[in-house]
Amino acid sequence: MKLIAMTPEPPYYAVIFTSYRTSGENGYSEIAAKMVGLASKQPGFLGIESAREDIGITVSYWTDLEAIRLWKKNFEHQEAQKAGRKNWYSSFKVRISKVERDYGM
Amino acid sequence: MKLIAMTPEPPYYAVIFTSYRTSGENGYSEIAAKMVGLASKQPGFLGIESAREDIGITVSYWTDLEAIRLWKKNFEHQEAQKAGRKNWYSSFKVRISKVERDYGM
Repeated sequence: MKLIAMTPEPPYYAVIFTSYRTSGENGYSEIAAKMVGLASKQPGFLGIESAREDIGITVSYWTDLEAIRLWKKNFEHQEAQKAGRKNWYSSFKVRISKVERDYGM
Repeated sequence: MKLIAMTPEPPYYAVIFTSYRTSGENGYSEIAAKMVGLASKQPGFLGIESAREDIGITVSYWTDLEAIRLWKKNFEHQEAQKAGRKNWYSSFKVRISKVERDYGM
């Protein structure tokens, strides 16, 4: 999924997830990949972009706030969120934003 | 600048810049660091987060659209934008979004 997301014309929503990992794998990679697969099957999913150096940034794109709310409440995602708080992230920030304009090359 | 940005209570704006680099350095790192320094002195700048693996994601945070517009028009930044299109990026996408809600740990 290491591609620039092919999003439609704005408006749409972006969830910006910035995080620091704890040391150690603790099952992270497998679940992270599984969550990308699950998210991409959710209604309203538009795409995802992800990179990690010192911090990790994952931006997922959605049609609307209801789609974001439903993904947050997905059972397997909720389990992953708990594991994230407990095992994988020393700190994180989630920002829910409405994309008003975009352009590119 | 490899930190989670300490942004204020929403609303504020996020500029999500996703890119693929060309191969070769072509003076990129020096100018990129200089642009972070310049941006951070702009009125309305709130913070910046950046990571690159296969793709690069840089998210800069701003008080309002006017602050984003002024930074885009900054002379040295305009020169860097030209070099970016010509030399550094094979493709990129800029998304301007309004952060409506955030939370973290």
